[in-house]
Amino acid sequence: MSLIKILEILAILVGAFSGFIEARSKRMDVVGVFTVAFITAFGGGTLRDILLDKRPLFWVTHQEYAILIFLLALVAVPAIRTLRKIISERLIVVADALGLGLFSIVGVSQALEAGMPIFIASMMGVITGIFGGVLRDIVCNEIPMVLRDGKPYAICSFGGCWMYLLMQKTGVPPDFSLWTSALAIVVARLLTWHRGVRLE
Amino acid sequence: MSLIKILEILAILVGAFSGFIEARSKRMDVVGVFTVAFITAFGGGTLRDILLDKRPLFWVTHQEYAILIFLLALVAVPAIRTLRKIISERLIVVADALGLGLFSIVGVSQALEAGMPIFIASMMGVITGIFGGVLRDIVCNEIPMVLRDGKPYAICSFGGCWMYLLMQKTGVPPDFSLWTSALAIVVARLLTWHRGVRLE
Amino acid sequence: MSLIKILEILAILVGAFSGFIEARSKRMDVVGVFTVAFITAFGGGTLRDILLDKRPLFWVTHQEYAILIFLLALVAVPAIRTLRKIISERLIVVADALGLGLFSIVGVSQALEAGMPIFIASMMGVITGIFGGVLRDIVCNEIPMVLRDGKPYAICSFGGCWMYLLMQKTGVPPDFSLWTSALAIVVARLLTWHRGVRLE
Repeated sequence: MSLIKILEILAILVGAFSGFIEARSKRMDVVGVFTVAFITAFGGGTLRDILLDKRPLFWVTHQEYAILIFLLALVAVPAIRTLRKIISERLIVVADALGLGLFSIVGVSQALEAGMPIFIASMMGVITGIFGGVLRDIVCNEIPMVLRDGKPYAICSFGGCWMYLLMQKTGVPPDFSLWTSALAIVVARLLTWHRGVRLE
Repeated sequence: MSLIKILEILAILVGAFSGFIEARSKRMDVVGVFTVAFITAFGGGTLRDILLDKRPLFWVTHQEYAILIFLLALVAVPAIRTLRKIISERLIVVADALGLGLFSIVGVSQALEAGMPIFIASMMGVITGIFGGVLRDIVCNEIPMVLRDGKPYAICSFGGCWMYLLMQKTGVPPDFSLWTSALAIVVARLLTWHRGVRLE
Repeated sequence: MSLIKILEILAILVGAFSGFIEARSKRMDVVGVFTVAFITAFGGGTLRDILLDKRPLFWVTHQEYAILIFLLALVAVPAIRTLRKIISERLIVVADALGLGLFSIVGVSQALEAGMPIFIASMMGVITGIFGGVLRDIVCNEIPMVLRDGKPYAICSFGGCWMYLLMQKTGVPPDFSLWTSALAIVVARLLTWHRGVRLE
């Protein structure tokens, strides 16, 4: 299994989890929980693939991930009640930061592979990283958190994508670029969150 | 005219009607009424075709349906005022159940034809069946009803899609599979609605 | 540079500006300002291209426009505070009318070029003209203004698109058709706005 595949699977599970929590906080039923989890997990990558006109979509060739989220959704409704008492906000932020780093770098590397110009490739990375959450918030009838809370989130993704792009241009081995850029996003997100850094 | 075409036209008219009502209840003007009716009627199928990368879209090759909704929208604004006094909630639920059954089975059969794996095909059926309504509610700035009201709606669609898939695998004639699965969805929706069955 | 390209660039700048204002009025941060400006500027054209299955997207082949909006977004956040005191509602309406006319006619001409039937082509023109604003309002968690305020906006676009289609059918030179139809939309929008014309 290639490095990119491992990254993508990890990011999907984290996205689904964040969708479960948001859907339940809106008192959605099991259908809503599955739908929102699915959109959060696959929304960014699906939008990227539609914009790039890449088919089949990731979750079409790998129906096992769709089935996995389906099964998790069945468990999630009763489980979230008890889990929410155990799981702290801190854990959610960490898991989400992991997803942001992983999705973004997968997105930018796939856009580059598809021959996108460099600035567009960095945007595709950010879209892959944040649009699952944007679509989740739109379906849940909220102004997307990432667009208004003033915390560096999309910007961490953007910075990491450019780090990856520069490393690729300067001949750094792809695997090393992937992991370090994704890690940089995770660290930047967690540090700025911990310190309460805010943008205008 | 093939069976699938007949199903699709019926489902479009029902979807448009539900869009008319929702848009007027939000005090939208004639442009809003047409747009919301169009999105409700064609949204699920269009999303399915974008995900499958199938072109031209149904309503592009059959512009007569777009024109039909356009003309109906012109009539709908004054007509809905009087019609709402006559048309009961019961009638709307029945028409909507019909649309759900028809759209879902058209969706699953087209996904299967496009070579989708079986679980994804069932999801495409549900997407075709429910996403017109989901998009309608997003445009009308509501949390999609189907994701939160706890009534078996998407689940009826999901069950019917699997019934169709199993019938196809076991060699039942396609036409018979189509009609019985669509009918099963309609009956399941109406029965659970009438009895007030609720999911978690 | 062809006529259509000039039209499209002008319309993009106007769309971005309207996105800046809306995003700031929702207290979004710089990421939100860029995202909403981008969606408003490119949303209608992107949706049209996805529906037509046309790739690469305009903003992919012309990454300079994406970079331009990115740079403007950096300036916009501090600038809008002072600009809003200077810029009147009247100026915004005029700029927006310009965008509506330009986008609509670009949209209908491209749909015609892609071989769409005539009514669908007119719809693609309207979609290109108004869906940037529709998507902007959905992201900003509002019922899209264009669907409910009862002012002739989409209808001006629709009328202008048909004017263009008729001129094309009757052999009027393309450049002349383009400019006069776009101008007709701008004039119709401004006149009806000024006179307070309202639809049902």
